[in-house]
Amino acid sequence: MNSRIVRKALAGFRWQDVDVLAYKADAAPFRDVTRQVLFGDAGQASQLRYFEVAPNGHTTLERHAHTHAVMILRGAGRCLVGDAVFAIETFDLVTVPPLTWHQFRASIESPLGFLCIVDADRDRPQLPTPVELRQMRELPAIRAFLEADS
Amino acid sequence: MNSRIVRKALAGFRWQDVDVLAYKADAAPFRDVTRQVLFGDAGQASQLRYFEVAPNGHTTLERHAHTHAVMILRGAGRCLVGDAVFAIETFDLVTVPPLTWHQFRASIESPLGFLCIVDADRDRPQLPTPVELRQMRELPAIRAFLEADS
Repeated sequence: MNSRIVRKALAGFRWQDVDVLAYKADAAPFRDVTRQVLFGDAGQASQLRYFEVAPNGHTTLERHAHTHAVMILRGAGRCLVGDAVFAIETFDLVTVPPLTWHQFRASIESPLGFLCIVDADRDRPQLPTPVELRQMRELPAIRAFLEADS
Repeated sequence: MNSRIVRKALAGFRWQDVDVLAYKADAAPFRDVTRQVLFGDAGQASQLRYFEVAPNGHTTLERHAHTHAVMILRGAGRCLVGDAVFAIETFDLVTVPPLTWHQFRASIESPLGFLCIVDADRDRPQLPTPVELRQMRELPAIRAFLEADS
């Protein structure tokens, strides 16, 4: 029982009794992201996950009705939320409102690790259609952000 | 709107647009604790709070039906959960099960800062009665923990 009450932090942003998982089980596009569920069955209405994006990697560009509450835990990078791009650093807080396109990108020099709280009961992410993606790319700042890895 | 999407981390574990609050509004016993609500109205089923216990300070000894999901973010200390005392360090994870007595104490040398996720809809904490406190103190490890500040 004791090992369940306290799970020690290990080197490299890993934790006792926490598996390092594939970021996505489906074919959604992303690059170099891992996922760890830190609290997922604690009898709570929410889950706490830790995502880590390797240098120059990025999460999936997506949106959904549920909200993300994010705290950057390691490194730095940028995020797209809606129609704006933000620089993000360790311990910054990011709110992703409902049905808002978002993507997290690590800088070239460092990984980007972040905590993300979501409701346990939530909808599945939506990917942009080709038309939606074309509309997003019409804003130069968003186009530059999305093409940073090309 | 942009300032609401990203709230920057400030020096000393403070955040843009986040107030440093009294830990408790009532007369429950504690020593040298502050509270910051990092995500409280994000349209989620949970809240994320950051508590910081000054060196040698401690939170209230209490229990409640709701669960705590905790990540240590700064410093080190010890926690009582149920009938056991655990050493805790930065990034360790602590689960406080329902109706389980718990208290967090900072070490003498450093503050203890931690994230705590709770359901937004939750019951109020209960304090131990004198009889319950006497029963807890019958375990030498718990007595030593509770008397560390005396």
